[in-house]
Amino acid sequence: MTMYEIIAGKKQGRELTKEEIQYVVDGYVSGDIPDYQMSALLMAVCLRDMSDRETADLTMSMAHSGEMMKPETGGFNVDKHSTGGVGDKTTLIVAPIAAACGVYVPKMSGRGLGHTGGTIDKLESIPGFKTELSYERFTEILRQNGLAVAGQSGALVPADKKIYALRNVTATVDSIPLICSSIMSKKIATGADGIVLDVKVGDGAFMKTTDDAEKLAELMVRAGRLAGRKCTAVLTDMSKPLGRAVGNSLEVIEAVEALKGNAPEDLWEVSLALAAEMLAVAGKGTAEECRAMAENAVSSGKALERLSKMIELQGGDPRVISDYSLFASPARKKEIFADRDGFITGISCEKTGLISLRLGAGRSKKEDAVDPSAGIVFDRTVGDKVGKGDRLAVLYTSSECDLEGIAADFAGVFRYGSRSACPEEKNIIKIIKGY
Amino acid sequence: MTMYEIIAGKKQGRELTKEEIQYVVDGYVSGDIPDYQMSALLMAVCLRDMSDRETADLTMSMAHSGEMMKPETGGFNVDKHSTGGVGDKTTLIVAPIAAACGVYVPKMSGRGLGHTGGTIDKLESIPGFKTELSYERFTEILRQNGLAVAGQSGALVPADKKIYALRNVTATVDSIPLICSSIMSKKIATGADGIVLDVKVGDGAFMKTTDDAEKLAELMVRAGRLAGRKCTAVLTDMSKPLGRAVGNSLEVIEAVEALKGNAPEDLWEVSLALAAEMLAVAGKGTAEECRAMAENAVSSGKALERLSKMIELQGGDPRVISDYSLFASPARKKEIFADRDGFITGISCEKTGLISLRLGAGRSKKEDAVDPSAGIVFDRTVGDKVGKGDRLAVLYTSSECDLEGIAADFAGVFRYGSRSACPEEKNIIKIIKGY
Repeated sequence: MTMYEIIAGKKQGRELTKEEIQYVVDGYVSGDIPDYQMSALLMAVCLRDMSDRETADLTMSMAHSGEMMKPETGGFNVDKHSTGGVGDKTTLIVAPIAAACGVYVPKMSGRGLGHTGGTIDKLESIPGFKTELSYERFTEILRQNGLAVAGQSGALVPADKKIYALRNVTATVDSIPLICSSIMSKKIATGADGIVLDVKVGDGAFMKTTDDAEKLAELMVRAGRLAGRKCTAVLTDMSKPLGRAVGNSLEVIEAVEALKGNAPEDLWEVSLALAAEMLAVAGKGTAEECRAMAENAVSSGKALERLSKMIELQGGDPRVISDYSLFASPARKKEIFADRDGFITGISCEKTGLISLRLGAGRSKKEDAVDPSAGIVFDRTVGDKVGKGDRLAVLYTSSECDLEGIAADFAGVFRYGSRSACPEEKNIIKIIKGY
Repeated sequence: MTMYEIIAGKKQGRELTKEEIQYVVDGYVSGDIPDYQMSALLMAVCLRDMSDRETADLTMSMAHSGEMMKPETGGFNVDKHSTGGVGDKTTLIVAPIAAACGVYVPKMSGRGLGHTGGTIDKLESIPGFKTELSYERFTEILRQNGLAVAGQSGALVPADKKIYALRNVTATVDSIPLICSSIMSKKIATGADGIVLDVKVGDGAFMKTTDDAEKLAELMVRAGRLAGRKCTAVLTDMSKPLGRAVGNSLEVIEAVEALKGNAPEDLWEVSLALAAEMLAVAGKGTAEECRAMAENAVSSGKALERLSKMIELQGGDPRVISDYSLFASPARKKEIFADRDGFITGISCEKTGLISLRLGAGRSKKEDAVDPSAGIVFDRTVGDKVGKGDRLAVLYTSSECDLEGIAADFAGVFRYGSRSACPEEKNIIKIIKGY
């Protein structure tokens, strides 16, 4: 078995054996297989695809390339993962809800890069909040309060770390088998008993079409099942930003409001569906029962208590829950007004994300620092009728950016048209259960 | 313009611009573009192909990546290139013929690797013969005698050297645009006014089908024309070894015999066609006139004189022309006899090449030394009727190889059948003129 033969085989469209895939993962992690051979193989995978079986084998080989975790909670551990979107703060909402309902949520998260934000960056906008936790402390917090959120450990899935870095510079990111193995190897290695996947669909998501999203969702659910995990994928809309806030502290505030019962409809619908599935994979009841439990966790205030406690346990100031002025306040703001009458028929996710990035809320390069106060709050959303001069949004920043120039470009985020041109709202597209 | 965008574009099947191709070649040669990005692009090219225009631009960018030669002969310089085959000693025959007819043949050649031999290795089997020549000496010999053969200069087409090495380890060799640019960039950089390409077709060649060979031939001819060179491609048969001898000194002897008028029919037909095209691109006359001139160069002994003089000028012993015992003689030989009655319906090129390699005539790795005396001489060829016990071939070697084992495996080189199963002999498949 040689890497040359494996590359040549995949180039010709041959299905690789389990042993060949293991050989590739082991060899690449150990450094025996050089980057230039791996990138040739990755490109061949992008263009020739992988079977479901190959994808599952790749996922498992990658999951086992480093430490396998298994936080001892004595209960059922559920992980939740989103394929990434703009304004996606659901983790901050659903993890406390699930914890309040007796499920353990050990969450390893990443930082934001490009036009989508990361949960770690959002939480770090809370004064004092720490996401670098030892495994012992992580497990302790988890046991005590039912949820903990930490940055990803370096020892976890080294194969993904190395392969992802290479994909990122060789234009081999958008392959469904490679996306599946990257996500699921990490979920499997973190040792969750159940996994709920939020697969975003739309022009602001990796998966632009329902077909692609379904294919990815089914592959992931299958890989999860093969690893003995209970797994559900929820296809949700990402044709416009989720909720009204985009940015770090702005999204934390919106999540807190959601746990106080004040979520915008789209954000609440998606959060409720995800929370209910987290309870369902944990065997907490029927679909109806799980939804009711989740709703009750919010109306009773128990979910908000869990979030507050988590902030405290992770070194943050829990008073932010009731006093938003404790967040760093933005140095500048700019109101955006409609320049015409009409219906908002679309809000571009990608443009919104890039505006947010320019305001300082995200990072273009890994080394960049993030402005916790920067971002956008929308007053109006898709389907709304607006009159010329109505306020559409407010931009916030503490960064040294060209706020006037950004505001001018922000107008391009909106599309206008007639009432009939407004898309039908469909927040939950499909649910795919893998157990 | 970034390499990432270029890779992503080719991956999606986009045609790259001339500027993008130039950027890739410059960046890869300078080291700004790393191997892992280049190999991803090469794999995308293999699977998404390149247009004729892209291939021509790649060829020209590569040709100009290093020194551009232009040997000053005062006459018309013609280069001849073969895509590689088993028993292919035509350069040793056609270069002296063309020189005898007043055309200059500056030939830069490679060494053999794998199952095909290289002209340099063949010439070096002549005692004293030197292929490392300074550019000044090379031009001097060329001017004086009309032909000179040297190993490839390191300063010539560094892009090809680097790209080829990468293709070789990333399973990206068999792409027609990449093969075309590799061959033609070198031919263009060596400064020939005319180029005759011998494109081998058959299971012993890179191009297994006439369709693929034609596609490659047309691309090469087009790239040559765009570079202002007169270019012709001759598609020739490589479904069996060319001529009767395979090996280094054995092939030199067969070439000398050919120049004495004693060539096997297939070898002579291919050599005559190539030589005539070399004269034709140099404007020496009509097709008929060129063939007659080439035949006359042999029958008059003038071509043989040119070969003899070249050997002398390049430090070799020209007496080998009349006394083959001056070549290193093989330490061992083994006669091979037919084990059945029947017609020979096929001789596998690849198996013949590999047997020759095992006898010591070729190299598996670049560093290997070559046994000048090793090889095979066939007594019988495709279409011949043989009786059990008839001698089919003789194997020669001075290497410490397992001659008995090789002889046993050699039986597998032949295929037998009825008279009707013998393929029709067609040595020249097609001629594609590019001027």
